[in-house]
Formats: sequence, structure tokens, C-alpha cells
Amino acid sequence: MSPANRNPEIRKDAVNNRTVILSPARSLRPSDFKSKSQAKPDSNPSSDGQPQCPFCSGNEHQCAPEIFRSPEDSTSDWKVRVIENLYPALSRDLKVKSDDDEYCQADVTAGDVSLGGFGFHDVIIESPVHSVHLPDLTSSGVAGVLLAYKKRIEQLCAVDSISYVQVFKNHGASAGASMSHSHSQIIALPVIPSTASTRLNSMKEYHNQTGKCVLCNIHTNKLLIDESTHFISISPFASAFPFETWIVPRYHSSHYHELDEDKAIDLGGLLKLTLQKLSVQLNDPPYNYMIHTSPLRITSSQLPCTHWYIQIVPQLSTIGGFEMGTGCYINPVFPEDAAKILREVEMPKSD
Amino acid sequence: MSPANRNPEIRKDAVNNRTVILSPARSLRPSDFKSKSQAKPDSNPSSDGQPQCPFCSGNEHQCAPEIFRSPEDSTSDWKVRVIENLYPALSRDLKVKSDDDEYCQADVTAGDVSLGGFGFHDVIIESPVHSVHLPDLTSSGVAGVLLAYKKRIEQLCAVDSISYVQVFKNHGASAGASMSHSHSQIIALPVIPSTASTRLNSMKEYHNQTGKCVLCNIHTNKLLIDESTHFISISPFASAFPFETWIVPRYHSSHYHELDEDKAIDLGGLLKLTLQKLSVQLNDPPYNYMIHTSPLRITSSQLPCTHWYIQIVPQLSTIGGFEMGTGCYINPVFPEDAAKILREVEMPKSD
Repeated sequence: MSPANRNPEIRKDAVNNRTVILSPARSLRPSDFKSKSQAKPDSNPSSDGQPQCPFCSGNEHQCAPEIFRSPEDSTSDWKVRVIENLYPALSRDLKVKSDDDEYCQADVTAGDVSLGGFGFHDVIIESPVHSVHLPDLTSSGVAGVLLAYKKRIEQLCAVDSISYVQVFKNHGASAGASMSHSHSQIIALPVIPSTASTRLNSMKEYHNQTGKCVLCNIHTNKLLIDESTHFISISPFASAFPFETWIVPRYHSSHYHELDEDKAIDLGGLLKLTLQKLSVQLNDPPYNYMIHTSPLRITSSQLPCTHWYIQIVPQLSTIGGFEMGTGCYINPVFPEDAAKILREVEMPKSD
Repeated sequence: MSPANRNPEIRKDAVNNRTVILSPARSLRPSDFKSKSQAKPDSNPSSDGQPQCPFCSGNEHQCAPEIFRSPEDSTSDWKVRVIENLYPALSRDLKVKSDDDEYCQADVTAGDVSLGGFGFHDVIIESPVHSVHLPDLTSSGVAGVLLAYKKRIEQLCAVDSISYVQVFKNHGASAGASMSHSHSQIIALPVIPSTASTRLNSMKEYHNQTGKCVLCNIHTNKLLIDESTHFISISPFASAFPFETWIVPRYHSSHYHELDEDKAIDLGGLLKLTLQKLSVQLNDPPYNYMIHTSPLRITSSQLPCTHWYIQIVPQLSTIGGFEMGTGCYINPVFPEDAAKILREVEMPKSD
């Protein structure tokens, strides 16, 4: 069945309970999708030849406080730095309160809830060099970033009030990045966000019905892109976005921070390959990736149902009122077509 | 409490069960928020002086089939036309099937669902004149558009397989509009989208707890922007976006299509005023609006809990990985500040 002749289809997945409309592109073939706005790194402009970017090696003093660096005992030769966000969305002060305490009595409809904005908002600087982006690192280099996520999540786990940790990366201005130096972010929340609770419920329902974990049991025939020793990359069955890609552990694991060093190197290689393929095929698009892990404090009976994964979304389309209104995305590229294209991407020879 | 001194706050509303992080802007005051990309209408370019836009009066033959026009017996002097979308996201053929019927057996994880992409995707052309945008119409003119939505929803209600109707408007390219001629769209779905079922459940829960409808009972003290005989405009308590605005009927009504002619004129006036105020305050931003009505076939016991409203979202910010990952939005403008600013917008004198 050629993509051009496909009928529209409505799909709902068992992982997220997410509904999407797959509707063939009006004029484009799936292989014609390209990003219009490239997410090229800028240079690191300066008037006197000195680097101006606070994330660059040598400018550490311009940043908010460091949480840790890797290697731990490195000086200017660090590989990864985890720092506080200079402009955090949440306050590290556990006692932060809503300013208007009388607000609740006077104006809030019963059922509305207001909490002080406690939480953590950190930045992971992925390289000391301004022009080096994540997939430019070696597999071990990417693993170093992945292990920094793990270490920081483990620290945040120790804070009683934290319920969920979201690791995410914005690459390119139109994907939300305000700095071009390669970095990702971690926000730790005192509440479980709606996507995580919906996913947990959806995975539990699947487990109740089948006795199996939905992601251990995933069929990948037409949707597989690549595989490594411990991971697979796939186009998800109900892809919401063109060329949306998931990286899923082949072993059962509820929490990302269970990742060990061997598996981190294996994952580093597959994440690097996947980002390189998306960049080659789609003209270096802006993108986001998100690590979907389980809420930190789930019960032991929930552990067999839940399975973490990474969602990668190239930014190729505009969100309109339909998507905002319904939460249902219209995707012009069928995931089985995206998977075929990404399986067959010819990678430039590495030097 | 001046906006600059506010602490971050996490809010959850009783209407949508939606969590947002209100986090004061890094450097901007709320009144400094302006759109960078204006959604100005383009001209209607042509090589020979003839209008080229298919939505303009005189070019009706370039469009997909008309469903109805208003006034019904008008010729070239129509005011509103409802037509089929030339590139529909869904197929009007009830028997449309997924192409690969064997897909289900071979590849689909149990719990995944695939349906043929049946549904309706229509366009409402809001004016015969290319340069006239919705808030340029008189209150009665806007009412004509609102009554066209109502009439089309009533027609779609008669189709047994349709469960939900989403009315939405994309204004400006970055809000998803592919045509600059003023128009809105209606997509009728054979499923209830997740936002609508979440809202229905949230409103039911509030009703169970209080015996009241959440939107009839809404407190508006600091959040009220304007009011008319039958409607109010407010900044919602858990605003996800800067200057997000809701228009809510003051009377209890589950379904938008219960709107009568008198109320449509009243709503037309308030919608016009609201869009004009957002345009003046925010530098003619791209925007979306969505009518959040109830699923078509709710039970009589659900009618007292559910209440329709219009959500208007100016496009001032970029969605990043955190929002995509968690479904939780970070909004730098507190709704009580947005409401105060919008209450006090000085409107240019009308001619």
C-alpha cells in the first residue's frame, strides 16, 4: 500500500491511551518531510575573541551554582556539568507559599487547588565545547550525559516531597531552547503530572487484562527502526507527530534511574544513531526528547506494569486549535512509513 | 503584591483537572508581553487584479462543495459560507477502513485500537471579503458566524456515529492557519477526545462533591475581565498560557448548540470585544480559540454537571519538552495580572 493511497485512520495506543488521527499528507510523500527551520548551533559571538556563552568551559562563574560535574575531580577538563537553572520555574524553598493566602477564601472555586511552587529545575551541560552537540559525542560520551541524569534523579529521589522527575531536552529555538549550547533539563515536581498518571493507569489496565507489561510485549514488526543489545528504537503505533521515535529498553524496568553503566553505553550508542538519522533525514530539525519514567514512589504491585522509555519528537508541524482543544493530534506520516524510511537512512561515513 | 515579587505557584483547576506552574517572568512585566510575529492578514495577490483566494466572494467554484450559506437565499452577497475542507483530516465515508486489515493480527499490541478514519472536517468562511477579520464584523456579524457553528453542529448531531464536535479557529500562520482569509473549522469525531472526557469527569466530580455546576459556581472576583447580559470573560484560575481567556455563559448550558439568536448577538459582542482587546494589548498575536462543548450523547444525569465555554489562547510562547512530556504548562503571567490588564485595555475609538 503506497502512502499516497492510504485512508485516514484513528489509532489509540495501550501505553498512553492516546488517540491520534493518521491522515496522509496533502501533497508530500513521507520521505519529503524536511524541517524548514534548521536548529544549527550558532557561533559563540564575542567582541574580544573570548567565548561569551556561560555554558562554555572557562565561563563556569557566570552560571548558577553547580550541583556536580563529571568526572568529579575534573577542573576545566570536565565532560558534563549539572547546575541549577539561573531562572528556575520552581523554587527550591520547601516553604514557598502562595503570595495571597486569602486568595483561597475569596476567589477560588471549591475544587481548585493552589500549592506553593516548590520543586527543582536543573540544567545538564552536555559538553564543555559550544559547537559540540549531543550526537557529536561518542557513545560513551552520550552515556556520560545519561548517567548524569541517573545520578541527579537519585539525589532528587531522596527529597520526600518530590513525586515525579521529568528529564527533557529542547534542541533549537522553535523547540523551546533559549541557549544553543547543548544542554538538557530536569524538573522535579511535588505532584504527579497528568501524562504520567494517565500512562500509569493505561499500563496497569493492560497488565490487568493480559498479565504482561505493555512495553515488554510490544510487537514491532513494521515499526522497528533499529536495535542494540538492550534497547530498540521504534515508530510508535499511535505516533502523534511525523517521525516521532521511541527508544524502549528490551528488559523490564519501571524507572530510568535503574540504568547501569553497561546499559548506558549501549543506550548512548542507539540515542546517538537515532538523533543522527533524524538529523540526516529531516534536515537537522529542532527536536525535543523526554524521558518517560514512573512516578518515584509507586507500590511494588505497580512495578510489573510500568516500563520507562524515551520519546523523541522532531518539530516539523504546527499545533493548531484542534490539537489544543481535543488533545488529539493529526499526523500526516503513518508510523510504518516513518519506520521504513528511518531504517533505510544512509548515514554519512564517520571519520 | 507586585507581579515581579510573586513566588511560583502550582495550580490545578476543577474544570479540567489541569495542573499549571505559574512562574513569574524572568525579566518581563505582564504588561510587557507582546507578540513577536504579528498575524496580519496578507493582501490577496493576483497578477491580473482578480482575487486569488478561494475563500473570497467570486471564487466559490475553487472550493470544495458548499454545505450551506447564510443568508440561505443569497448569491454573491452571502455573509457566511460553510464548506467541506478540500483537504479533510477524516473521510466522510462511514465505511472507510484501515488499509491493512491484517495489521491487527500481525503487529498490533493487544490494547492498541485502530479505526477507519471516519468523520467530518468543514470550514466556516466568516466573511466574503479577504481583509475582513472576525473582530472587524459587527456583533450581529459575529453572531452570524456563531449561529453557523450551531446549525452545522445540529446537522452533525443527526449522524449516529458522531460522538463529539470540535469547533476551532486558527488565526495566523504560527497558530496553524494555512489560509489568511478569516475562517474557522469544525471536525466531527466518532470518538470522544481525551480532553472532553477528562473535563466531563472533572465537572462530574465537582458536582458530586458540591451539588453544583462548576462553571455556574465559578468565583470571578480578581479574574473577571468583562461581562455582558448572558456571558462573562475571565482569566481562568489555572491559566496554562499567558493571557488565556475564557468566555463562559452565565446561564447553565451543557451544549454550545443550545445557543439562541438573542444570546448569539450578546456573545458576538463579547467575543468581538475580547479579540479586539487581545489584539490591542498583545500586538495582534496569532491565536486559537476552541469551543469546549459536551459530548453529543451524554445522559440526562450528566446534563446538570457540564457547562460549555470558549477558550481563547494567544500564541506568545513556545512549547518545549517539559510541557510535551508532562502535559503541565509553565505560565509566566499570573491570571489575576492578565485579567487586570485586560480589564483596563484602552480601546481605540470606533468610527
